[in-house]
Amino acid sequence: MAVYTDLTDEQLTDLLSDYDIGSVLSLKGIAEGVENSNFLLTTEQNGHAEKFILTLYEKRVNSDDLPFFINLMSHLAESGLPCPVPVKRKDGSTLSHVAGRPAAIISFLEGLSLRRPEAVHCHALGAGMAEMHLAAQRFDMERMNNLSIDAWPGLYETSRHNADTLHAGLTDLIDGELARLKEHWPNAEAGLPRGIIHADLFADNVFFIGEELSGIIDFYFACTDMLAYDLAIVLNAWCFETNTSFNITKARALMDGYNSVRQLSPAEIEALPVLAAGAAMRFLLTRLHDWFAPQEGALVKPKNPLDYLHRLRFHKKTESAVEYGVEL
Amino acid sequence: MAVYTDLTDEQLTDLLSDYDIGSVLSLKGIAEGVENSNFLLTTEQNGHAEKFILTLYEKRVNSDDLPFFINLMSHLAESGLPCPVPVKRKDGSTLSHVAGRPAAIISFLEGLSLRRPEAVHCHALGAGMAEMHLAAQRFDMERMNNLSIDAWPGLYETSRHNADTLHAGLTDLIDGELARLKEHWPNAEAGLPRGIIHADLFADNVFFIGEELSGIIDFYFACTDMLAYDLAIVLNAWCFETNTSFNITKARALMDGYNSVRQLSPAEIEALPVLAAGAAMRFLLTRLHDWFAPQEGALVKPKNPLDYLHRLRFHKKTESAVEYGVEL
Repeated sequence: MAVYTDLTDEQLTDLLSDYDIGSVLSLKGIAEGVENSNFLLTTEQNGHAEKFILTLYEKRVNSDDLPFFINLMSHLAESGLPCPVPVKRKDGSTLSHVAGRPAAIISFLEGLSLRRPEAVHCHALGAGMAEMHLAAQRFDMERMNNLSIDAWPGLYETSRHNADTLHAGLTDLIDGELARLKEHWPNAEAGLPRGIIHADLFADNVFFIGEELSGIIDFYFACTDMLAYDLAIVLNAWCFETNTSFNITKARALMDGYNSVRQLSPAEIEALPVLAAGAAMRFLLTRLHDWFAPQEGALVKPKNPLDYLHRLRFHKKTESAVEYGVEL
Repeated sequence: MAVYTDLTDEQLTDLLSDYDIGSVLSLKGIAEGVENSNFLLTTEQNGHAEKFILTLYEKRVNSDDLPFFINLMSHLAESGLPCPVPVKRKDGSTLSHVAGRPAAIISFLEGLSLRRPEAVHCHALGAGMAEMHLAAQRFDMERMNNLSIDAWPGLYETSRHNADTLHAGLTDLIDGELARLKEHWPNAEAGLPRGIIHADLFADNVFFIGEELSGIIDFYFACTDMLAYDLAIVLNAWCFETNTSFNITKARALMDGYNSVRQLSPAEIEALPVLAAGAAMRFLLTRLHDWFAPQEGALVKPKNPLDYLHRLRFHKKTESAVEYGVEL
């Protein structure tokens, strides 16, 4: 949960005067999104109430990246993906400034984020992710993935001296895996298709109504990277049970869903185990960082890094994508 | 802000199966209500989306009091007051149990809680409060005010030894005022009309759409007490500026609004200064308590007790209700 910044009546009224979405009916701070302040905004126009999300971008989001994020959402929504639509201001732009922060108003998406997605949801997400990847091929902006393999050693430095206090042997394991990943990470010659990935498709960023995918939100880690890396992140985020066992039925459903829209290439399939280990490493390292250096004023309880240690160990032993449910 | 308890998909589905309000479209934890966990719940029925508030009652609310609170809201809403309507379960009751806690689903009220209410809002609130007092006269349950004058010495004990560390001389001032209030507090012979009061009508519990009162929420301090004490609480909560100066224009508007619906008696008018000092004492003491003994796991920053020290000092010097804008 996170509401860092609050708005005064005047700030809200001033902000709304820049938009053509009617007058404010209500504004509630909502416990959604870890990085930013989010509000559910209801407005009234011509006797009709409409819901929006008002996001104030806090300091962890680089404001130079905002046009990329906002334009990407607009592009994907126009392509028919169930993504939030950034609302245009009267002046045609989509970014505002309020309470000393950049801000945007986006459409509200109905749906529930699932605590325990089933295989049917994994299938729907696989298909939706592949559609997103294809739609984003026609998007003309790029953003470097600043949390990819090159960033990991630096990120690790902030918690390396503490890691063993959390779990004996953690430092050695990470050291070894960082070396292994560096050696085996797919390079340009491997020819894995690249494009825009979401890079943070955790269950709380995906909405369902029943079994139907109704929303993909929170594009604030989206970046240009290997498309299969997005799948590797979701394998980690969706296909392990809370007891940390791997659920191959869910993984198979995820892969089938993805392949039903965009067929994975042989190179992508071959790279899946190392990409999955890399994805586990990325979240292990950021969680370690947040564990030992919690954000000032954050209302968010740091997530347990060890969830990703278990995943990393699993992927370390994986020899082929068959173990992730891919049919060769 | 406060979301203490989270719900799993299964818990939510189970809960909704006890109601006739359709299927879940979305659930968002909202930063509203200090004592309980509140969620904005959207459901869909016959193609129509509807909003509700789902409240999980945390331990600070005595579950024995819940029927009083819920029935009071039902009664007031039926009387035409803009209060949340508790939704009936299929079995006809209004209280549920989920995640180990009592819970209720109530209707969602549109409107904004104002950071800086103007005189026009004070007038509307005065009138609305009087209507609430009148409507509640036909409500047949009672609840003792367990935060009234008899409770203050015990409440004070928890922070008395610390009070001077917050503000030099605070202990002496409170000791003196507690004695003065005890001496002058209106007793039964004074004949002040009693009934159900809200007892926590702070700005965040009152919604407006434009200048119109659109909602009164959070009845979880409601109790049986002198009606004029509710007015004294609102005088404290609405009629002081952030620089702690008293705004008599707002107070006059509040009194005029109240009197336009229910005329204050001479005894009530005479008692206003001591009731206002008592209301300031009540919030000074609870804030002192929370300041020095913050709740375990609370995501709420304790409010500054000294805001109420300034108010208490003001009321201590007040000699007549004329100073609160009452025309004699």
